[in-house]
Amino acid sequence: MKSYRLEPGHGLAGLTVQNRDEPEPGRGQVLVRMRANSLGFRDLLVLAGDYPLPIRPGVVPGCEGAGEIVAVGQDVTRVKPGDRVAATVFPRWLDGPFRREDAAQLGTMIDGVLSEYALLSEDGVVRVPDHLSFEEAAALPLASVTAWNALTTGEAPHPGSTVLTLGSGAVSLFVLRFAKLSGARVIVTTSSAAKAGRLRALGADEVIDYREHPDWSSEVRALTGGVGVDRVVDTAGPLHQSLRSVAPSGEVAFVGYWLSGAEGAAPVDPAALFMAGAVLRRVATGSRAHFVQMNRAVEAHRLRPVIDRVFPFEDVSAAFAYCESGGGFGKVVISHG
Amino acid sequence: MKSYRLEPGHGLAGLTVQNRDEPEPGRGQVLVRMRANSLGFRDLLVLAGDYPLPIRPGVVPGCEGAGEIVAVGQDVTRVKPGDRVAATVFPRWLDGPFRREDAAQLGTMIDGVLSEYALLSEDGVVRVPDHLSFEEAAALPLASVTAWNALTTGEAPHPGSTVLTLGSGAVSLFVLRFAKLSGARVIVTTSSAAKAGRLRALGADEVIDYREHPDWSSEVRALTGGVGVDRVVDTAGPLHQSLRSVAPSGEVAFVGYWLSGAEGAAPVDPAALFMAGAVLRRVATGSRAHFVQMNRAVEAHRLRPVIDRVFPFEDVSAAFAYCESGGGFGKVVISHG
Amino acid sequence: MKSYRLEPGHGLAGLTVQNRDEPEPGRGQVLVRMRANSLGFRDLLVLAGDYPLPIRPGVVPGCEGAGEIVAVGQDVTRVKPGDRVAATVFPRWLDGPFRREDAAQLGTMIDGVLSEYALLSEDGVVRVPDHLSFEEAAALPLASVTAWNALTTGEAPHPGSTVLTLGSGAVSLFVLRFAKLSGARVIVTTSSAAKAGRLRALGADEVIDYREHPDWSSEVRALTGGVGVDRVVDTAGPLHQSLRSVAPSGEVAFVGYWLSGAEGAAPVDPAALFMAGAVLRRVATGSRAHFVQMNRAVEAHRLRPVIDRVFPFEDVSAAFAYCESGGGFGKVVISHG
Amino acid sequence: MKSYRLEPGHGLAGLTVQNRDEPEPGRGQVLVRMRANSLGFRDLLVLAGDYPLPIRPGVVPGCEGAGEIVAVGQDVTRVKPGDRVAATVFPRWLDGPFRREDAAQLGTMIDGVLSEYALLSEDGVVRVPDHLSFEEAAALPLASVTAWNALTTGEAPHPGSTVLTLGSGAVSLFVLRFAKLSGARVIVTTSSAAKAGRLRALGADEVIDYREHPDWSSEVRALTGGVGVDRVVDTAGPLHQSLRSVAPSGEVAFVGYWLSGAEGAAPVDPAALFMAGAVLRRVATGSRAHFVQMNRAVEAHRLRPVIDRVFPFEDVSAAFAYCESGGGFGKVVISHG
Repeated sequence: MKSYRLEPGHGLAGLTVQNRDEPEPGRGQVLVRMRANSLGFRDLLVLAGDYPLPIRPGVVPGCEGAGEIVAVGQDVTRVKPGDRVAATVFPRWLDGPFRREDAAQLGTMIDGVLSEYALLSEDGVVRVPDHLSFEEAAALPLASVTAWNALTTGEAPHPGSTVLTLGSGAVSLFVLRFAKLSGARVIVTTSSAAKAGRLRALGADEVIDYREHPDWSSEVRALTGGVGVDRVVDTAGPLHQSLRSVAPSGEVAFVGYWLSGAEGAAPVDPAALFMAGAVLRRVATGSRAHFVQMNRAVEAHRLRPVIDRVFPFEDVSAAFAYCESGGGFGKVVISHG
Repeated sequence: MKSYRLEPGHGLAGLTVQNRDEPEPGRGQVLVRMRANSLGFRDLLVLAGDYPLPIRPGVVPGCEGAGEIVAVGQDVTRVKPGDRVAATVFPRWLDGPFRREDAAQLGTMIDGVLSEYALLSEDGVVRVPDHLSFEEAAALPLASVTAWNALTTGEAPHPGSTVLTLGSGAVSLFVLRFAKLSGARVIVTTSSAAKAGRLRALGADEVIDYREHPDWSSEVRALTGGVGVDRVVDTAGPLHQSLRSVAPSGEVAFVGYWLSGAEGAAPVDPAALFMAGAVLRRVATGSRAHFVQMNRAVEAHRLRPVIDRVFPFEDVSAAFAYCESGGGFGKVVISHG
Repeated sequence: MKSYRLEPGHGLAGLTVQNRDEPEPGRGQVLVRMRANSLGFRDLLVLAGDYPLPIRPGVVPGCEGAGEIVAVGQDVTRVKPGDRVAATVFPRWLDGPFRREDAAQLGTMIDGVLSEYALLSEDGVVRVPDHLSFEEAAALPLASVTAWNALTTGEAPHPGSTVLTLGSGAVSLFVLRFAKLSGARVIVTTSSAAKAGRLRALGADEVIDYREHPDWSSEVRALTGGVGVDRVVDTAGPLHQSLRSVAPSGEVAFVGYWLSGAEGAAPVDPAALFMAGAVLRRVATGSRAHFVQMNRAVEAHRLRPVIDRVFPFEDVSAAFAYCESGGGFGKVVISHG
Repeated sequence: MKSYRLEPGHGLAGLTVQNRDEPEPGRGQVLVRMRANSLGFRDLLVLAGDYPLPIRPGVVPGCEGAGEIVAVGQDVTRVKPGDRVAATVFPRWLDGPFRREDAAQLGTMIDGVLSEYALLSEDGVVRVPDHLSFEEAAALPLASVTAWNALTTGEAPHPGSTVLTLGSGAVSLFVLRFAKLSGARVIVTTSSAAKAGRLRALGADEVIDYREHPDWSSEVRALTGGVGVDRVVDTAGPLHQSLRSVAPSGEVAFVGYWLSGAEGAAPVDPAALFMAGAVLRRVATGSRAHFVQMNRAVEAHRLRPVIDRVFPFEDVSAAFAYCESGGGFGKVVISHG
């Protein structure tokens, strides 16, 4: 079987394909024939050696993928051969709060899924909703679980709540759609009229062009009668604008965008944190329980992720290059054909 | 001004109209010209002397009503003359858990709103959403706040959650609609094909005819892959069927229907409580905070309550008689014309 | 190695000792040389065939035990040979709410720990605090985890909260001690002056003799200024008295004592449930996360469980007979010598 | 009656004493003969014109005080003449999350309690535990309610939790004591061996001298096996050290110390916020419900606040000057004699 391997810190040059035998699933494990993967911002950081956690040299990269189970080890009860499954990014984070001892994540400390076959624990896979293709299912494990966690941890939106999300990255698009399914009013920021139209088509109630309104938090306050929104999912920064956008006793959930440097990474004044009167919560993907609960929403509403472009498994380099060029709308997917 | 007065325990014969001067609002109070009221199951119990709490002889009955503010006392800051408001059933229960010291409720221990004018505390009124008529606004304070509390206390439904509600009483209809706005899949029980059609029109995903399926909990389990629903709002009983309908770690919120005696009041086996593996929570209306939060949902989604029939203020007796006859679909409203 | 085996429904006659080879730990498994076990009410139900869940014929009984790790399988990271561990009753319930798919419990559906060696998953063991002997550690997994779950799920007691627990069974003794560590005021019921003294010595602020006061809930109300307690952990029933003992917006957590029939199993009037104004929660042991968190409390406060009597491994029948006779104070322990 | 009045921004020169008639309590109000007040960091900010909220010129300053009720207005039910009460800092924040509409606070936007008599709403006073003197009761409303809110909002400490608090300011001393009552292990930072001794006497398990260890977060991690504490109550900053001290999925509650400028106000890197993996929550005093709940703890454990020095009502200027000089241990109290 073919697997990508990564020597981190060398960019695309560090990415090679290797052949090895298909492994046998041990007790509690499953062997998955991967059918699709997806890539994103995190993978670019890993490739560049900019990810804030150690990366094992020679690791199989990729934390998002879906496929079908071809063999199961002893004592496996959750799934069986033939089941369509997606991998969870943190195979040991099953439920409850994140703990350091369960921090192993696919594609960095432990082998990921950019491979023809992947050996995973049965706890580390979840069933794929029937209406999704493998390409669609592969688009969910990172961005949509992050979006679900960011929205539902703490006080989840009620019908009539207001939610702000920033830009049209993959997490933000899922936040928009899950928040709309929850009955919330959703405000999104964007940089172009073209994207604004697509965001409205996905349900956005209000779109703010942040090029036109660099001080977009003032627009958010104006759109909420001066009160601010109940929840910001901050996927782009700067945090001080999110803090000015949130209502007292609201929440700002923020993800790791600051890793990309630039404006999003601007330091925050404690006065801004205090005067916001809100809770600030960092969000890093989510647990198996988040994924399962989110899949119920995806299934009940027959939601399909927005896919930007699909590349063949042989051409992962082109997919990475496309990702790096920025500018798409939706997820970049790898198909195994 | 004309006010209804009640000598409890005499049924309709205990209900009289009296004239008195319009009161002056004291500090922190508002005088509301009532424009509409509504009636329901609770009012029938009060009339009959079957309500489980003491009723002050000569009390102004009625706990649901809307109108406009005509005068405000000193230090009033929440509202001003001309504002359209609805009364809250528990004027002192502002937020947080219910406390016995804040148990005074309109129309039983303290004067209610079946009157041309009502003197209320500013904390005991909430603004009426613009799109609602006074008749619609008067339909909300008891049943819809109960429904909101029953759905959102504890773990509120997420998109993809499953919710069961029983019958087409006023609380149940609001549960159905709020749960649908939350993205939940909703199962409702009913006794007739005609009502089933109306429930589906309001969004019910599944309707179970409990005459056809007296053991309706088996149907609920079948419709949920054997797991049960995440939340039951039990508005009709019997509780042991609700307990068989709920998933482990789910919740059963139940309201005071058992007061009507009959099957709904059957005693519950501790084994049924235990084997359900769920939380059981009684729900009695809700706080001002519940009402305000619910109004945001009503406003954002331009929700309108289902109104069964409207009676004139002069003809409250006919309205009570109609209520007592049962059988409607939606709220019975009193209009002050 | 010697293991007890059980043919359920035959009482002590169904209990035999068998010899078999020590198993090899598979991937993710550990082999534990058991050093102590404990028994209780649940084991008597299993023996008698009265347990409400299916029991696999020939199963190794026992869900409570501690020992040391003698071998670990592949990929085990949580523990290593030589570690002192206790087994968790539900090896697959790691964190978050209980789910039916993780319901396998030691000694009923799957092999338990009344054996010289036990093969367990690494997730199914937790480290034993250093200050505890194996006998003490074996006394914790069922009763103390149940007590911890019953106290901390929902709104945990604060300093100044009031807690009621019933009798001097193992769960109740742990509730008393954990509640005292939380700064709560604790009321306990009992049947004798001798036990009352021991309960006071363990920290009970108030002890009610329920023989003297069969309507003990009135005493509880009197001791709380008529308000009731914030939390009841109902380990003995009848539930209607617990419901009369709890404050509005409080919680009643109840365990499976009703299985023993008698007064504790009396059916509950929905009116009593409603008028209590409290949440009712059934509690069935707890997750690995509960156990780990509880162990931190045990360790920080160098808590030692109350042990009633210790029997040798060879004499499990005598231990069962002693259990059945009732009457002790603390846990019945089996030592492997 | 004599009242202090404040022209903000002029320091002590802006503070004068005026005479006016005792007011009559309106509906829902109570007249309190103040017997003691206390001062702190917030009052210094108000005096200096550095408080981040508008201050009404001529306002009666002081947000902390206790006394006895001498008259009640119409409809008052919570208290009666003769009751010993303390004022709540936010008289309209009764329960639930803080809302901007309930933001009026004593001594800034509305008249405070540095006066012989104070006119307060009945909702804005709470009963004083019997064992406390007025001087002790006056020491509680700001610092101890802040400490209680900071500890109990979100996941409150359990027995065995670890809590870090910074320094020996009034909030920090209450955090230490409430956390100990909760069964937590408490780490405190300090600047001198003398204070370290007093902190240990109050129950501190570990004291870190931050002069000796300017990078005190490393000490905190060392004392917690590298994991970090479950909760930091950050009363002194800098926030980035608190973020390095907290465990993943823990909480940092921080108060308004940054207003004093200096090191505590250093801006925070989003990377530090993210890598902490914790929730960050600002805390600004608390609600009436927090105060009532805290008083139950104070009463049950007969807790007495640490009082540094007592000044007479006539000599408030000296008390302010003493406050400004820093250096004490405990609250600065004003006695009306």
